[in-house]
Formats: sequence, structure tokens, C-alpha cells
Amino acid sequence: MDQRLSLITLGVADVGQSRAFYEALGWEGRSPDGDVVFFQAGGMIVALWDRAKLAEDSGVEDPGGSSGFTLALNVRAPEEANAIAEEVRAAGGTVTREPAETFWGGYSFAFTDLDGHPWEVAHNPFWTVTEDGRTLMGDE
Amino acid sequence: MDQRLSLITLGVADVGQSRAFYEALGWEGRSPDGDVVFFQAGGMIVALWDRAKLAEDSGVEDPGGSSGFTLALNVRAPEEANAIAEEVRAAGGTVTREPAETFWGGYSFAFTDLDGHPWEVAHNPFWTVTEDGRTLMGDE
Repeated sequence: MDQRLSLITLGVADVGQSRAFYEALGWEGRSPDGDVVFFQAGGMIVALWDRAKLAEDSGVEDPGGSSGFTLALNVRAPEEANAIAEEVRAAGGTVTREPAETFWGGYSFAFTDLDGHPWEVAHNPFWTVTEDGRTLMGDE
Repeated sequence: MDQRLSLITLGVADVGQSRAFYEALGWEGRSPDGDVVFFQAGGMIVALWDRAKLAEDSGVEDPGGSSGFTLALNVRAPEEANAIAEEVRAAGGTVTREPAETFWGGYSFAFTDLDGHPWEVAHNPFWTVTEDGRTLMGDE
């Protein structure tokens, strides 16, 4: 199995509201079928889909809530994280950890989207964000 | 907020066992600190970390289970999905939907990893997987 990821689909209560949240953060989605919404995010896609349909399609039980994963966006400077925290608040997200230096030597904050899906926005001085938006580990 | 994703961290019960599962599928991880494991997956990173630590770091309650998201890998031919389904079974994963044609005109199967995190491995004839492993929507 190739060491890559093509897509992460987030199960959401209301696709339209979730799309509006991510678009308020500056993302631009497309919905070819009016059901699922796709965001081309670098070399992969982030999708939003009804969470009951997603669980059924994946052959899993959905216990509700959001658990077991966190998404992260690495930015190029701490100030960029601060600015995004304000965007998140304005869009109706919840900042669950305020912007601050982290135990691993970076700077980040955490938030949850409308469905409680967790994100971290981080400046990691040991890793590289390339001009075309790829994130590479420090010594790759 | 840039329309990209740097990292997805999966919360797991046993980092060593989960690492062994993904390495049995052919992935190669690194653990700079002996705690978190990182897999460089194209222009982003997939990480494995203790799920209690992850929930605390993200400022969320962890209700257990895995819910609200599905990861996907797009492959270049249906036969490749069939082969990966066998690799998943051999590695101790659970195939939750057998390889078959899908309602959206592709071919895929679904599985869960050792922690119940859901994946889909799909051949999507409308999208492109580039030679360097990026997945692009059809008309991008």
C-alpha cells in the first residue's frame, strides 16, 4: 500500500453549514453532486459528507462525537497561527487551546470545527512548509 | 487559512502495535522521540500517538471508538485495491466492505485499522493520481 493519503472525509451533521465554516476560513469547495463537498488541499482532498452516510459507507458504527484523530495545518510563522485563531473564532469555531509555545518547541493553538472535529494550527520550526504547500519533516 | 493539510494524527491504544500494522502494509515510519510515530505521506505526514495524550493536547473529550472521519487512498487500478485488501487481512486489519464497484462509479473496499479507524481504498476513474502520488479532482 503506497505511503500516501488521497482523501480525508469528515462526517458532518449539516454539509452546507460545515462548508460555510471552512469557506469562512478562506477555503473554496466544490460539490459536483450537491451531496458531498470537496476541497482540493494540496495533493489531497478534504471532503465533507453526512456523517451517517459516511459511517455506513465505511462499514463502521458511529458512536457520535469526534474521536481518535486530529488534523493539523503547519504555518510559516507564529503570527500566522494567531491570525488564524481569530478567523476561527469569527467563523464560529471553538478555540480549545489558546495560541502559545508548545512542549515540543513549536507554537500552536487547537480548535474544533462545527462538528467537534479537532485541528491544530502550528508553527513547527523543525519542519519545512514548501512554497507549494507541502509539509516535510526536518531531515527529509 | 491556507487550503492545505499538513498532518493527520491518529490516536491509538498502542503506538508500537499500530506502527507495526502500517509497516506490515509497506509504510515506513520514524519516531524521533520514541513516543509519536511519523509517516511522510506525500506532501503531508500521518502520525500515530497515544489517544489520551492526543485528546488532551487537542483540548477535546475522547468518547472512545472512532467516529466522524474516514481516510482514503486512491489507487490506479481496481486490481491494486484487491491486492491491498489481502495485505490488510494479513496485517490484522478488518475489511468492513469487500472490494466491489461503488454507487459513484468507482471500485473500492473499506477497512479498519487496529484502533477501528476507517479507511477506504478506491479506484476513482474520474480523478487522477499523479506519478508523484498527488490525488487531483478530475477537472482541476
